[in-house]
Amino acid sequence: MQSVRIALDAMGTDSHPQPELEAAARAFQQWQEPVLLVGPAAELRSRLAGLGLGSDQVRIIDAPEVLEMTDKPADSARGKPVSSMAVGLELVKSGEADAFVTSGNTGGAMANALFRLGRIRGVKRPGLTAIFPVQDGHAVVLDIGANTDCKPEYLLQFAILGSVYAETALGVPSPRVAILSNGEEAGKGNLLVKEASPMLQASGLNFIGNVEAKELYSAAADVVVTDGFVGNVFLKTSEAVASFLSNLIKQEITSSPISSLGGLLARPAFQRVNAVLDPAKYGAAPLLGVDGLVFIGHGRFGDEGVLSGIRAARQAVERDLMTRLRDAIQTRLAAEPHRDRT
Amino acid sequence: MQSVRIALDAMGTDSHPQPELEAAARAFQQWQEPVLLVGPAAELRSRLAGLGLGSDQVRIIDAPEVLEMTDKPADSARGKPVSSMAVGLELVKSGEADAFVTSGNTGGAMANALFRLGRIRGVKRPGLTAIFPVQDGHAVVLDIGANTDCKPEYLLQFAILGSVYAETALGVPSPRVAILSNGEEAGKGNLLVKEASPMLQASGLNFIGNVEAKELYSAAADVVVTDGFVGNVFLKTSEAVASFLSNLIKQEITSSPISSLGGLLARPAFQRVNAVLDPAKYGAAPLLGVDGLVFIGHGRFGDEGVLSGIRAARQAVERDLMTRLRDAIQTRLAAEPHRDRT
Repeated sequence: MQSVRIALDAMGTDSHPQPELEAAARAFQQWQEPVLLVGPAAELRSRLAGLGLGSDQVRIIDAPEVLEMTDKPADSARGKPVSSMAVGLELVKSGEADAFVTSGNTGGAMANALFRLGRIRGVKRPGLTAIFPVQDGHAVVLDIGANTDCKPEYLLQFAILGSVYAETALGVPSPRVAILSNGEEAGKGNLLVKEASPMLQASGLNFIGNVEAKELYSAAADVVVTDGFVGNVFLKTSEAVASFLSNLIKQEITSSPISSLGGLLARPAFQRVNAVLDPAKYGAAPLLGVDGLVFIGHGRFGDEGVLSGIRAARQAVERDLMTRLRDAIQTRLAAEPHRDRT
Repeated sequence: MQSVRIALDAMGTDSHPQPELEAAARAFQQWQEPVLLVGPAAELRSRLAGLGLGSDQVRIIDAPEVLEMTDKPADSARGKPVSSMAVGLELVKSGEADAFVTSGNTGGAMANALFRLGRIRGVKRPGLTAIFPVQDGHAVVLDIGANTDCKPEYLLQFAILGSVYAETALGVPSPRVAILSNGEEAGKGNLLVKEASPMLQASGLNFIGNVEAKELYSAAADVVVTDGFVGNVFLKTSEAVASFLSNLIKQEITSSPISSLGGLLARPAFQRVNAVLDPAKYGAAPLLGVDGLVFIGHGRFGDEGVLSGIRAARQAVERDLMTRLRDAIQTRLAAEPHRDRT
């Protein structure tokens, strides 16, 4: 087995760097390979020593600056050249690392990745990707926020990239690709959906047409493409309704002693429900379309979540996701020689 | 008190006409005024007799055709001139009824209403409206599906119409108006949001800027405007996540005897949660912008739901919603004399 070198942003999670340090330690236990932990070296070194770890277990790469949630994405890329985000991505660019994992500011990660790694040749817009828990499985949804206004061609590329990811990472052969729309029927949709549909139809992908949220959650598709505005509304509505409902349930259950007892007895069931919904369990999501492997976790990640990001990144390296993504885009470009190849 | 004449589509709900018949009977008990029940007269008359009701309690208006869910909206308006939908709307147009309530095909209702009643003078696009249960209250959201591609001006008009509705029907003084977006911050949004924002800012409405789904569900705004594609994705994602979660909870709770017992003890709490989410409890939603009062209920409505639609329609008549809507649009037009007044 080739060695896999994962660069890990030590300063990504809301409670950085503790979850990252613990995840780095657990990663060494699990795979016997040191993670490249990127952040303020002195601080990280002393904390690592506190955990009884040395540079054989976790390699520290110095990056004195931290990208904050308040940093504007566009400024952060150029403005903080030695942030942990920037230094981590440079490790991928130089080939010193095979992939970069961060739980930091998503917009900043996208801006930095575009600035430092660029796009895969032929990709017009990289997509922010999320892996949603759905009935007995997962769905890959993109774009969930990087590109608020999209051209039909972008949706086609999201479909190609998402398809390769579902196949490679989730092990789904010939993934079913759909467009998120306001009705399942062909002909439903806004202008973008109507223009993108025939392109997807002709793409050679396993395109199954429109889906609504209901079908998405009942696992009718493996890959769902949408523009970043709608995808973001979908993502945030999903989170908001889950949180609204679970608060409502909590409030009602604790409103009487008998139902409180009921809630207590049913607690393991609720915990399993939470586990299904917990982003830390389904891992970090890839930035698809940038020219290097970048995985973005949730700011709320603990060490378990960060470790799941490292796992997803290692798997992508081992299965050579980058080559597959590049090949899929090149194949598409070759099939359409009249299109420009920016 | 003036008399209020409500035309009720007898053939709207999925299990028509039973819920409509029962709701009509309950409406008479409650308000001592007969509903105008629109549908196949012979069938309705014999069923009414079975309920021990005569024409003093429920007036029957004959409409031999039924608008099916499979009828295409555009065809249904012209194609079925004596459907219960068409006949009911004609009663409003002729002044024989003050409002029309239907739980039928939403697209068909919109198409028929536009064809038979037309738009309020100055309104460019009527909006489908939904009343969402949110933290300790309700939010008026439009458009949720009638206009997939919108101009900024439509969003401004949705805001005016929704504002009047929130004030009149929900009793909210100076309703807080927001745009659904992919971030709260000013400057976030797709092109449509960015173009509509300054128009709303200058409108004289109580415009509070962008909201995400999270703020919408925590009652940060009373009226939320969006294009019909995004609004529809928001609506259907909300429904899909609620249903996905409650199935998941049911499945996990019944997976062990102890948590099943817990679920049993907590059942009243779950029932209260369901009551909050049940569309029948928060009633039918108005078609805002057509030139007449039309309320659309859910196909799954039982008699309680249909009755809530009748109640919402009666209230709108009593509070003279139509005049307020017309005045608000006229005031807006007068403030912008350079705009065309189609």
